[in-house]
Order: sequence, then C-alpha cells, then structure tokens
Amino acid sequence: MSEEVALSLDEVRRISIDVLEAGGLSPEHAQAIAGVVYAGQRDECHSHGMYRLLGCVRSVKEGKVDPNAVPDVVDHAPAVVRVDARYGFSPLAFERGRPLLVEKARRTGLAAMAINNCFHFSALWPEVEAISADGLVALAMTPSHSWVAPAGGKKPVFGTNPIAFAWPRPDGPPFVFDFATSAIARGEIELHRRAGKPIPHGWAIDSEGNSTNDATAALAGAMLTFGGHKGSALSAMIELMAGPLIGDMTSAESMAFDEGVGAAPCHGELILAFDPKVFLGAEATQHVARAEKMFDAIVGQGARLPSQRRYEARERSKANGVRIPKALYDDLQALLPR
Amino acid sequence: MSEEVALSLDEVRRISIDVLEAGGLSPEHAQAIAGVVYAGQRDECHSHGMYRLLGCVRSVKEGKVDPNAVPDVVDHAPAVVRVDARYGFSPLAFERGRPLLVEKARRTGLAAMAINNCFHFSALWPEVEAISADGLVALAMTPSHSWVAPAGGKKPVFGTNPIAFAWPRPDGPPFVFDFATSAIARGEIELHRRAGKPIPHGWAIDSEGNSTNDATAALAGAMLTFGGHKGSALSAMIELMAGPLIGDMTSAESMAFDEGVGAAPCHGELILAFDPKVFLGAEATQHVARAEKMFDAIVGQGARLPSQRRYEARERSKANGVRIPKALYDDLQALLPR
Repeated sequence: MSEEVALSLDEVRRISIDVLEAGGLSPEHAQAIAGVVYAGQRDECHSHGMYRLLGCVRSVKEGKVDPNAVPDVVDHAPAVVRVDARYGFSPLAFERGRPLLVEKARRTGLAAMAINNCFHFSALWPEVEAISADGLVALAMTPSHSWVAPAGGKKPVFGTNPIAFAWPRPDGPPFVFDFATSAIARGEIELHRRAGKPIPHGWAIDSEGNSTNDATAALAGAMLTFGGHKGSALSAMIELMAGPLIGDMTSAESMAFDEGVGAAPCHGELILAFDPKVFLGAEATQHVARAEKMFDAIVGQGARLPSQRRYEARERSKANGVRIPKALYDDLQALLPR
Repeated sequence: MSEEVALSLDEVRRISIDVLEAGGLSPEHAQAIAGVVYAGQRDECHSHGMYRLLGCVRSVKEGKVDPNAVPDVVDHAPAVVRVDARYGFSPLAFERGRPLLVEKARRTGLAAMAINNCFHFSALWPEVEAISADGLVALAMTPSHSWVAPAGGKKPVFGTNPIAFAWPRPDGPPFVFDFATSAIARGEIELHRRAGKPIPHGWAIDSEGNSTNDATAALAGAMLTFGGHKGSALSAMIELMAGPLIGDMTSAESMAFDEGVGAAPCHGELILAFDPKVFLGAEATQHVARAEKMFDAIVGQGARLPSQRRYEARERSKANGVRIPKALYDDLQALLPR
C-alpha cells in the first residue's frame, strides 16, 4: 500500500489556499477554489479534491486563465443573472452571482444564472448543493471539450457534458446527483491506457467508428454517451442550453479555443433555481412530504440515493479528517514558497 | 399484409373530433385532443395517433376523467403559470396556459407552466414543438404510473417519466427529442407478452429483482430505467420536479389514485420555456448559428437528429395522407353515431 498523509479538514482548506495563492491566484479566487477542493476532498471525490490543485496551478501557468479576473455580475432580466467570469475560474463567478440568483428565484418562482467565459474544473454538485441550502431546487449543466460522438456517429461533437440536480430535504443533506452524459469520465480511459488494461465495450469507438476495447484507440477515436440515443439527446440539450442559449461556446468551439494546450475547458454554465415556496405557498410542507415518501421507497428497498456514498464519506471526514497520498502531499508542498 | 384504409390529414382530424365528441368530450376538449392525435398520426407515431382515440374514449367511460372540465389558468408568480386541468385531459389545459407561459418567458427570460390534476395521454413533443414555434426553447416532463425500479432496487417507484426538449431553428422544424426514462415503453413489453416473445435483458426484472427475458415476469416485476444509475437519477428528478415541486402526485401516488382502473395516469406536468432573445439580445442570431454548426457536425457525419425520422414522415403524410389499419378504422367508425 502506498504511503499516505493524514490531514484535518482545516489543513485541507489551509494548504489549498496557500498552494493557490502561491500559484498566483488572487486571494478571492484562492478562497473560492479552495472551497470546492475542500468539499471534494471531504466527500472522498478524490479526482475533485486536492489533486485538482495541481491542474489548477498548471492552467494558470499556461497563461489561458486570468488568476485575478474579477467576475462581473449583471442583473440581466427579471429572471436572469449573467456573470461574466472574464476568463477566470468558475467558483468565484458562481459565488458572486449566487445571491442574485436566489433573490430572483424567490421573487419570480424560478431564475437562471448564465456564467460566461469561465474555466471550469470543479464538479457541479457543490454548486447545486449550495443553492439547495437556501431551500431552492437547482439544476446545473455545462459543456466541456468535444470528445464524445453523437448516437449513430463516429466523430466527436459533444463534451462529457455533466448535469447536476439538487432537491432540498427538510432533515439532512439534499438529494443530489451530478453525472457526465458520457458513458464514462475521460480520465477513466486514460487510467486504463496507462495501466495497459482493456476498456469495456460501450465506453468508446475507434477512429473508424468501431467499438473498441483498446484505450489508446478510444482516445484517438471518440467516447460514447451513456444510455445510447437518449443520453446523446440529453448531451445535445446541454450543449445548446449551456452554450448558444447563454451566448457561449459549444464543446467543439471550446476545444478549438484551447488550441491544444489541454487547459481546463473555457465555456459557459447554466444554473437554474426554483423556489418551492413560490410554487406551493402554504402547501409546501405537505408536498415536500410526498418527495420524502419517494425517497423512503427507494432507500427502504435497499437501493441507494445518488449522493448517499458521498454523504457517508463526509461524516467520516468530519470525524477523522482525510488521508491523501504522500506523493500528492509532496507535490503540493513543492508548490509552496520555501 | 393486413388491410389498410387511406385517409387525408383533414379526414384524420375530422374523424378524431367526431369520435371524441361522440365519446362525450366537450367540443373544446375534442378539438385539443384531435390536434395531438392528428400530429401523432401525421408523424407516423402510431401509438400516439388515431389508436389513442380508443383509450381516450374508454377513459371517459371509466368515469375518472371529466370530459367537460374547463381548465383554470392562474397567473401565479412573475415566472410561473399554473393551470388546474380539473381532472380533464391535458391538451386543452396546455393550450389554455401556453399564451401566458410564452408571454412570461418573453418578459422574464424564462418561465414555468405547472399543469395540475390532468390526465395525460399524449406525447410531450407536440407541446415543446408548439412552444418552439414562438421562438422559445422548451423543456417538458411528467411522471406516469410507478412501474420502474430505481437503480439497485427491485420494486417499482418511478413512472416511465418522459422528458422532451425543443430548440427552435431558423430554417425548418425545431430540434426536438422526447424520450421515456424507462429502458423501453411499457407497451413494448406487453406486445412481447402477447406475441409470446422473450424480451432483451436490460428492460426489466422479475419480482425477485433478477434480470428476466420473460415478458409476463417483467410485467409482474419492475421495468428498469435507461442508462443505469444515471437514467434512474434523471427519473427521480422528473418525479420531483413534475410532482412535489408543482404540488402534484408522484407516479406511485398516481398509480394508487387510479385504483386499478388502468385509465390514463392523472398527475401534473412541468413545462419550462426560455426566450433566447432575452438571454442574448442583439447577439441572438450569431449564437443560434453556433447551434446550427453543431447540428451540421451531427448530420454531416451521417448521424440522425432525434426527430429527423418524424419530420420525414410528416412530409410524406402531407404529400400523400396516411394509412391506418382497417381494424382500427372499423373500431373508430363503431364509436360514431349511426
């Protein structure tokens, strides 16, 4: 077993902020990014935990991301907030726009936040979870880089295009899901390639459009969406809603914009918020109970809710802190000033 | 080959209205329902075409549906329209609420229409397509009856829970998809049972939770969602958004409400509309062109857009009329007054 380092959650946040500030990010960006890195590490989503700090600092060095960008929040329409991230990372843009999104949803019933020109690297679940903490239902989606073929095609058009949803629950954490509309994360295929292991059928096709078990051929070909033509349709919707609808790039355009640098994808994000209190008024409690009955029917038969595993990890981390690989810890220490 | 009857599209509409009025539906309901039946038949979606008239008239006879219900349209919040269908069929409720939904989306950027207490039997694509005809992007979803098990479970909780989306295109018909979040339509399993044919793995499980090829065991057990745990998460979202969020029943509650009659499911529907002109202002044309580029990348590699087949059928039907089975034609004639 490889060596590990034990950290308290406070240390996770502190080290994250220090690494980011040392990497040239403004204190505001460092705080915001450290917040999602902290959440990822705490919930044992390792690929969205402290590991991400390395890529984050690298993206700044590559010169595409503005580490000091000040997001511009615009009250665009009665139910629309626009946030121009000005080519900075997304977490600060999200944080700056969120209060107005929540305010609008409470006034109109539902509202949208369109974040433009942002470099996205965090998962979407911390965002929808943050909105649900204000008692709202949230739905978020974003394109990525065009690695995924549409159903029936063989050339990449779509990104891995994640979609996330949160439903606030009266007791305990919200019902949350966050999944890529690709069959699998691109990183999984890369891990298989490095390990020299075959990939399962259904993940990808080679450049001729044939199903392949070969990770290298898959990376040169195209990934597939989950769920066949249905997943492909959903992926197209995410491209349209979080791209052209909000005046931002599709995954193919974002990939071209990257110019082969391999930085975090630069694009837009669409976040919708719905206020159950506006929809339901005095009857909200009674209808929220209907949702609880459905959750009980799922958990009661031994099935899991989408974020159950993550919430269990969260409790563990709160009680015991976290452990990260010694190699990662050393890489992070090397980024700090001597 | 079984005998068929050729009908003009005018005849499809005329016969549909006559059958519905003879079945006791008010002229307003008959017009609205005939509109979606006409669209289904025209686009060669046979299960949503004239065949549906039989179930529609039967549902009225069973006494659950009010054939004279007058939908009540309420301007509920700046971005929310509520329509109480008062236990009538959904198409009239949708038609009555649509103008206010469109008006609100144009004013606020996006808006929601919550239809409550309606019996749903039509596909969702005619609805999202109607909204896109006004230049808006539309997303619609509804629960059904609880036949579908959550991922990792073995007892039904979810309905077949369709989701539909429309994106208006500058030239020609919109980009539209409409799919059930179950792996397959329940009717498909019933067709296999009647034909004594095995069903593919992945469609359903038996009452013990084991994968089954037996259609009868599947109908007694539970259907599966498409796309594993991702499809299951999406199905849960539809339950929540088009159920408790709008103060209406989940699929399990709707099934209980039916009391074994087997009528069309009674429940709610959520329809969202987004106005690209509000989101994009003067830049709308430029960003809509980005979407067209994506569609070109899909079609250009020989893949199909979700509604392409339906639009091809539409052109055929407009040119040549439609053909329906003689047996169906006779059944419909038998419902008309002598």
